[in-house]
Formats: sequence, structure tokens, C-alpha cells
Amino acid sequence: VTRAETLDAASVLRGDLGAVARALTLVESDRTRGPALLAALAGHRRRAHRVGVTGPPGAGKSTLVSGLAASWRRAGRRVAILAVDPTSPFTGGALLGDRIRMGEHHGDQGVFIRSLASRGALGGVSAATADCADVLEAAGFDVVVVETVGVGQGEVEVARRSDTTVVVLAPGSGDEVQGMKAGLLEVADVVVVNQADRDGADALASALEGAFALRSGPPPPLLRTVATTGRGVEELRVALDRHVAAQGEEERGRRRVDRARHRIRDEVDRRRQEDWWSSRAERLDALARAVAEGEETVASASSRLLGDGR
Amino acid sequence: VTRAETLDAASVLRGDLGAVARALTLVESDRTRGPALLAALAGHRRRAHRVGVTGPPGAGKSTLVSGLAASWRRAGRRVAILAVDPTSPFTGGALLGDRIRMGEHHGDQGVFIRSLASRGALGGVSAATADCADVLEAAGFDVVVVETVGVGQGEVEVARRSDTTVVVLAPGSGDEVQGMKAGLLEVADVVVVNQADRDGADALASALEGAFALRSGPPPPLLRTVATTGRGVEELRVALDRHVAAQGEEERGRRRVDRARHRIRDEVDRRRQEDWWSSRAERLDALARAVAEGEETVASASSRLLGDGR
Repeated sequence: VTRAETLDAASVLRGDLGAVARALTLVESDRTRGPALLAALAGHRRRAHRVGVTGPPGAGKSTLVSGLAASWRRAGRRVAILAVDPTSPFTGGALLGDRIRMGEHHGDQGVFIRSLASRGALGGVSAATADCADVLEAAGFDVVVVETVGVGQGEVEVARRSDTTVVVLAPGSGDEVQGMKAGLLEVADVVVVNQADRDGADALASALEGAFALRSGPPPPLLRTVATTGRGVEELRVALDRHVAAQGEEERGRRRVDRARHRIRDEVDRRRQEDWWSSRAERLDALARAVAEGEETVASASSRLLGDGR
Repeated sequence: VTRAETLDAASVLRGDLGAVARALTLVESDRTRGPALLAALAGHRRRAHRVGVTGPPGAGKSTLVSGLAASWRRAGRRVAILAVDPTSPFTGGALLGDRIRMGEHHGDQGVFIRSLASRGALGGVSAATADCADVLEAAGFDVVVVETVGVGQGEVEVARRSDTTVVVLAPGSGDEVQGMKAGLLEVADVVVVNQADRDGADALASALEGAFALRSGPPPPLLRTVATTGRGVEELRVALDRHVAAQGEEERGRRRVDRARHRIRDEVDRRRQEDWWSSRAERLDALARAVAEGEETVASASSRLLGDGR
């Protein structure tokens, strides 16, 4: 850790928002200074409430998260939001999105919003999101929200790595969206029916309650909100605070270790892959041609590369 | 390759639909007999037109693909559809979906539909989808459609591994969906504005044309459809046939090798990970606890595991 990183780290720990913004960029994009900064911050442990928010596109997650941030502010909490955009390029769209989203909280030093795009982040979006959340935690935010579009498996996983996972659904999203609920609901600590003033909200809530009744264990809290008017948002915020308060240190510690385990695995796998493939591009090309011609299968070509003679 | 696999393979190559269904289950779920069957099929090369269809939830992809299948049938082609559901469990929902989707094509031996869920597939959904497509190609289907919900990165990748990638959008899917278009459009060989009779369809088409004008290279064909009435579906089918006809053997071969390269990489990475982590669970747990306590960073813990002394 050099003097520059020590200075950066001190400013982040003081909660200087400019330093936080620079630190996030470093962590996302600089393979040397990013890890050094994270190392400088690691010893200064603070505990934020990590909240993952996921759900299908169009469920109103952004508006809801913005309303939650306002509610946490009224309760005296500082809030950081990481919005993960699964397919947009790493710059451009994300920045524009930040500016639009910041509107409501403009000039409030207690709210920080940053968009992360899935592509282009060193080591993948999952690693970048977790690293950024560490920076925000070190900067003293009381709540760190990670918001993802819960359709792809990878995106759901990112939101799941939290103290409290919130699944947001809305009525009338079409059959395709309905079909995705089963997988989403499994990861939910709290379920929200947003746009609860629309047709179909009652039917959706009943269907959810029916689904929970079929499962073992107590059902997660189910709340109704209208994010655009603020209805139910305060109650949701209270439910999230209660969830983490009821969790106990043991469960919270277990989730923290679980997050760390996934992050280490991802990092090790990434490094081992980079290393291994760097000297095998030509061999891979030759085998890919053989597979394309039907002379090898994917399994036999893989075995040849791995040298186990199968 | 045993006698059982040879018999199975012969029935698949004859196009027996019962044998095809059993073969897909084997390939998805049996680590020994699945690869053996794929090996038995590999030498019998046929060429299907592989079409990837992706787009946000609610764009009407299922209805459109069903209409395309009917159009290909009228043109004398046999069609197989693999529908990838990103978050539903591996059984149950998928089977119900198949039955609903088959309605229109009931009793037609020239259409085969199968749903694949992302979770539970051996080696991941990407590998399972590609293996299943190989079985369907060997069974003599002229067109193999892979349909995914194009929101997660992984799901877009699956649809991209084709001869022709179709991106389906619909008007009025909300800001969140709009934001995802940039990444989706990059992979499109053909773009469809479905639900073209709805408000906002013209605006969406204009926005797309504007976006293409800013890019280098010729824009992809942009077609309008109303899948529910069949409007424009025949024209879309013709555009897809034209795309692959115009592609030429060189480009088609390049894409085939590219698919094989990705599949071998995925398979090798998966096997190396399984092997490496099987003996390191305790060490990983200890390091994950150290990271959770702030005594290590993810990077330093990964370095310790990799033994490079950093």
C-alpha cells in the first residue's frame, strides 16, 4: 500500500463523496490500484445493512429504491445505491441513468447512487459489485442497496448476496414474467407487490400467498406498494430494518462468510482460467475446428486439452 | 460406445421423436450415457439452420416463434424449438410450458418443442442447450430455434451462438427495458418490432433506425410483426432464410468453430474447477471467514489459495 492509496483510503473513510466516486472507478477499472485500495480499507471494518433488490424489468424497482432511500434518510440513515444494468455498455448509458436517478436526492450528501454495467468490469460484474459495496461500507453508509434486473441467473445471484434480499413483482407483466417467479421467490427474504393500485394486484398477491403456503417454513413478509405515490414505502423500509434486526449476529455472519466464499471462488477461478488459456489458444482453435467438423465431441476435445487421454 | 447407445443413436438419426425426447433427457442429466450418445451422433453430420431468438420478457417471443415454426412447416421444413427459461426449476414448470406451447402444433411430427430451465442442468444451461441442439440437428431437423429471455448476459450469450440471431422488441416495455436495448442490438442479425399494432411501435422503430445509423456497417434488417395475428411472420421467416443463405460457407463455418470454441472452454473450465475445489473446501472456508472479518481481502485470500505468496 503506497502513500497515494493511504490518502485515498483516508478520504473514503472520512466519507468524502468525491473520494468515494474516484475509489469506485479505481476498483472497477485498475487492476493494481483497485486491490491496493481495497486492502487499505479492509482493516477499517464497519457494518452496513446490505439490501439486494431484484425483480423483472418494469416492476418499478428504481422508483421503489429511490423512495426507500428517502425513507431511510428521514430515519437518519445514509444510503448508497448500486444499480446493476445487465446488458448496457460500461459507460454512457449508466452515467445518464445516474443523473436521472439522482434528481430526487440532488444535493443530499447522505444519498449516493452509482450504476454498474455488467460488461467490461474487470473480473465480471459480480466481483465489481461486491468490491464497490465494500468501498461504500468503508465510507460509512448505513445501508448499501444493490439493485439488479432479476431475470438472468447471474443477476439474481448478485442481489442474493446480501443481508436482506427483496423481490419486487408487479401485476400484468405477462405470462413470461409469471413463469420466472418460482426461481425468484426462492431467494426472497421480503416480497413486494408494487403497482398495487393496478388491476391484477390482488390476484398476484393471492397467487404468491398460495405458492408460499405450499412451501415448508414460514412465508416471507409480503408487502404492497405504489412506488410512484409512495404508498407502502415507509412500511417496506420498516420491514427491511426488522428483517436485519431479527436476523441475529450468527445468521448475519453466516451470510457474510458465504459472500466471501463466493467472491474468493470467483476470483480464483478467473485467475486460473486466464493463466491456463493464455498458452493454449492455438490448440483450442484446432480442437474447435475438429468439433465443428464432427471429428471430436466437446467432451473428447476437452479431455485432450486436459491431457487425461480420454 | 455401447450397444444401448448405438441403438439410441440409430433411432435419433432416423428422427424417431420418442428417441429424441429420451436422448435430450440423457444429454441433460446423465454424465456417462449423455456424452456417449453425443459421441455416437457426432460422426453423422447434418446441417440445421440454428436460429437464436432473444429479447426482453413480454416482447411476445414464444408466440412469434410458434408462428415462425408454422411458416417453416408450410415451406416443408422440420423445426425444433429449445426454449430456455432462466430462473424456473429444471422440472415442472418447463414441462407444463411445453404442453401449452405445443397446442398449435399438436400431432405434427415436424415440430418438436422442449423447454430447458437454467438451473440444475449438468454443466450449466449453455452446455445443455448446445448439446440438445446437436441431438436435434442429428435427428434431421432443418431448423433448430433456441429462444431465451434476453436480459441476463448469460441468456443473451446462449441465443448468440447461432447462425442467425434475432432480437425481438415490443413498444412500451418501460424505461428499464429500453435501457437494455444497446447490448441486445449489438448481437442482432435481424431485429423485430413485435406488437407493431400498438402505440409506440413507430417511435421504437425510428429509435432503432437512428441507433443503427450511428453505427458503422450496414444496419440489420428491421421487421415489424404482430405475432398474435400472424402479420409479418411469413416475411420474417423469409428474412431469416435469406440471412443464412447470404452468409456463405465461410462465415457459417466461422460461427460453427466459434460455438465449438466456447463450448470446449466452458467444459474445460468446469472440469478444472470441480477438480481443484474438491480438495480445498476447508481452506476456502477459513479464508472466507478471514475476509468476512476484514483480516484478508478477496484478492489476498485468492493469492494464498493459489500459493503465489502475494
